Amino acid sequence: MGFGRSATVTSASTTCEGIVQRLDAFGRRFEPAFSRLVAAPAGAPPQLAEAMRYSALAPGKRVRPYLVVRSCELVGGAFDDALPAAAALECVHAFSLVHDDLPAMDDDDLRRGRPTNHKVYGEALAILAGDALLALAFELLARGYDSARAGRMTLELARGTGWEGMIGGQVADIEGETQAPNLERVRYIHERKTAALIATACRLGAVAGGGDEPAVEQLGCYGRHVGLAFQIADDLLDVTSTAEDMGKAVGKDAQAGKQTYPACVGIPESRRAGLAAVEAAEAALACFGQPAHDLVELARFCMDRKH
Amino acid sequence: MGFGRSATVTSASTTCEGIVQRLDAFGRRFEPAFSRLVAAPAGAPPQLAEAMRYSALAPGKRVRPYLVVRSCELVGGAFDDALPAAAALECVHAFSLVHDDLPAMDDDDLRRGRPTNHKVYGEALAILAGDALLALAFELLARGYDSARAGRMTLELARGTGWEGMIGGQVADIEGETQAPNLERVRYIHERKTAALIATACRLGAVAGGGDEPAVEQLGCYGRHVGLAFQIADDLLDVTSTAEDMGKAVGKDAQAGKQTYPACVGIPESRRAGLAAVEAAEAALACFGQPAHDLVELARFCMDRKH
Repeated sequence: MGFGRSATVTSASTTCEGIVQRLDAFGRRFEPAFSRLVAAPAGAPPQLAEAMRYSALAPGKRVRPYLVVRSCELVGGAFDDALPAAAALECVHAFSLVHDDLPAMDDDDLRRGRPTNHKVYGEALAILAGDALLALAFELLARGYDSARAGRMTLELARGTGWEGMIGGQVADIEGETQAPNLERVRYIHERKTAALIATACRLGAVAGGGDEPAVEQLGCYGRHVGLAFQIADDLLDVTSTAEDMGKAVGKDAQAGKQTYPACVGIPESRRAGLAAVEAAEAALACFGQPAHDLVELARFCMDRKH
Repeated sequence: MGFGRSATVTSASTTCEGIVQRLDAFGRRFEPAFSRLVAAPAGAPPQLAEAMRYSALAPGKRVRPYLVVRSCELVGGAFDDALPAAAALECVHAFSLVHDDLPAMDDDDLRRGRPTNHKVYGEALAILAGDALLALAFELLARGYDSARAGRMTLELARGTGWEGMIGGQVADIEGETQAPNLERVRYIHERKTAALIATACRLGAVAGGGDEPAVEQLGCYGRHVGLAFQIADDLLDVTSTAEDMGKAVGKDAQAGKQTYPACVGIPESRRAGLAAVEAAEAALACFGQPAHDLVELARFCMDRKH
């Protein structure tokens, strides 16, 4: 659901080079640890574990894990402190993509050039692999932290994922296709479908690093605005970019009758709203000073990217 | 996934009357509290909340919540201590039924005489409602207990539900349809698909009531064997009962090529295995003495029931 694997970062504009390189370097460090954390246990059916790992370990920018780790480090924690939560976030993200791609949902055959989960494993197994990835996310939290911290994180993750969070946003997004464009509605959708889980990533990172409540709140505020900026940029790219730039069909939102910022307020006003979200994200990090520089860059990257 | 709403308890044989009445009385007490615990929050799309509540609050025996509450009480806890965990278990159970009924899975139009979730709300919303019920289960644990207890419970619930638990069993069950009947395989399936979540119900109840590790283990052991006995009985009823008794078509397992006890070892040996599981369940409760009488009765009811 948004902010994901649909946009590549391999040839971003030069202003974004720093953050692109940082994400690449992070990915190389995160990947082997993530693969170990989601290693199939002896008690799981091999075919299920394979389907889960097919999607969890699919190539991706790993933006959510990056946000978990950097939020953790910003409040004084270490890379390893953040790992289980980062892996949990990526499992939730993978679960959402597997279910989004199903025939009854977006009915996609390809994701980043690879066959979607149900194309490889069939619909039944894809549904169950998605389900199991969601359960695994909570298991990773519970295994990775002491009980008290795991309990706190469970609340954050369940809220960011559930009926008031990402899944709620997905439902509102589908319902919005049959409704007239409305700014309040599109904001409601974007805040849940994309921004809620991004905010959760930042908040979990802060909790993992032992940050105090104000730090958790500030990082969550940053994440909400980054998620909103990213989704507005996504809306804009769908109407302004070429299929060549995007590496996928454009104009799909309007065709599907999606609730988008441009459909509600036009292109210039959408740009302004996106930049305002980036500024709000930056402002939320002011208290962290220079060490938060890369997160500021990431927020700007959201609006600057060409695909 | 088994042990659920497919068998009614309104006209059980007289030997089971006690436990049937107890379950009915429990249901009347649990229902309003459960409905309050899964009340739609302001931040959730109403249509999603309606779909979730449609299945969560559908008529059912509430065996899992009963096991949570009684396990909690057995170790010295109170009804209210068990409520959030009982509600969480029922949400997981409801989620599994919604996804099981999907066209890509069992493709069922009716469940206990009511249209299945996707028949009422469409496939996309049914998939998402199931997802959100699973997330809600963890949210209920995290909201209902102090962080340390919630963290511990999250681990139990995630394991009982995930790739090594119920969902793993569901995958093995589907795969088993194309494999020759094999006792090791059928036991693997039953232990996960049905028994894992029953055991989790008992374990969570014990944790909710502040039980020590041996108590948690004993109640979990009871739950595993009860779940196994129930599933063996289910296998037997599918080959020995009449459609009239069951209120649904019989002989479906053989038709679908399901892995069942009777298919592996025949009817008499299956009966013996079921009774052995009941005895093992009873033995696990010996340390609790007379107060565990109703749980013993419940175990016997599993094998005695006629539908």
